Amino acid sequence: MEFKETMKKRRAINFFDSEKPVDKETLKGIVETAALTPSGFNFQPWGLVVVRSQEEKAKLRELAWNQPKVSEAPVVLVVLGDKTSWREGHKDFERAWKDMVDKGLMKENARGMVAGGSEKLHQGTERSLAFAVKNAGMFAMSLMLAAKDAGLDTHPMEGFDHAGVLGYLGLDPERYFIPMLIAVGHFKGEKELGPAKYRKSYDELVLEER
Amino acid sequence: MEFKETMKKRRAINFFDSEKPVDKETLKGIVETAALTPSGFNFQPWGLVVVRSQEEKAKLRELAWNQPKVSEAPVVLVVLGDKTSWREGHKDFERAWKDMVDKGLMKENARGMVAGGSEKLHQGTERSLAFAVKNAGMFAMSLMLAAKDAGLDTHPMEGFDHAGVLGYLGLDPERYFIPMLIAVGHFKGEKELGPAKYRKSYDELVLEER
Repeated sequence: MEFKETMKKRRAINFFDSEKPVDKETLKGIVETAALTPSGFNFQPWGLVVVRSQEEKAKLRELAWNQPKVSEAPVVLVVLGDKTSWREGHKDFERAWKDMVDKGLMKENARGMVAGGSEKLHQGTERSLAFAVKNAGMFAMSLMLAAKDAGLDTHPMEGFDHAGVLGYLGLDPERYFIPMLIAVGHFKGEKELGPAKYRKSYDELVLEER
Repeated sequence: MEFKETMKKRRAINFFDSEKPVDKETLKGIVETAALTPSGFNFQPWGLVVVRSQEEKAKLRELAWNQPKVSEAPVVLVVLGDKTSWREGHKDFERAWKDMVDKGLMKENARGMVAGGSEKLHQGTERSLAFAVKNAGMFAMSLMLAAKDAGLDTHPMEGFDHAGVLGYLGLDPERYFIPMLIAVGHFKGEKELGPAKYRKSYDELVLEER
């Protein structure tokens, strides 16, 4: 699909067809296209938990304000941001670093500078949260567009008990933040898509030009 | 351009052609396509400052670790996330609410529930930061893809003095967070694009399937 059409046709849909599954290969293709998203230092501090079984979706729905789409969509993606990927020694840091050195994009002796720069930018509760969330937000946008391009629909949700979902997944709250859940599936044929919501214009979005 | 091609061809480029400007109409088209990005409650808590003049770019470059692309790219976008849009009374809240009521998507008497839900999710330093940053991150991804689709290249940057850039722009740190700067322009013809960095595979990205 053309990029602009993908942007225009992506809509947050409320009604998913529970009878139409999302096969694993399609989901894999979507995730690997979204994996091309850029990230600070190429740390890619994002991840997913894929929830498919009816039983698990029912548990998740309870933690997500009982939104019917959580159990009606065939797949729910829990999007994760890792607040610790920026630290020297973290596997994301080390792998990104090795890749850059191997490809000649960085010299070995720049390691201290890179590690120090990353620490300066990301250390502290607020900055490490912002690091995880900005990157995971970019990844989430790519996921929704890649799903649309693959003929699927999505609904991003932030209405859930954050601590509850982390607990349900057994994830460390010191490490992970969940910016959103994304329901993925097929639009239920007999339902009607509501009118599109307004969007801000260029003049509303641009505070100032210098 | 096809969506997948847009994803694949978007690369963070280091060398911009200073002689090739980005005209206002092209930038407007990019921003208005990116404006289709979804957001929590449709609050669209994002904005931009567009920096074009050589003098202003030089000031910004000083605050951005002296990265040459800040002054070499014809346009630098300062991406803003608004940490306060979720509050009842904020113009973003009020406009999104009015739009939903006008379109029959919400009933007037649900206002208290929506305002209360938004407050529950977003109140507090960390949650309001996450709210601004996740949404602005999605918007930033759309901007980079829309620029690529319009024949331009970009480079997202988080290496800058956050408090310094807010101060330079005269923006309230209680209200705004800057997830990144994005340089926008044309790739400098005589330079060579380095090898693409590695990306995580599906199996690396998915922590668990349930």
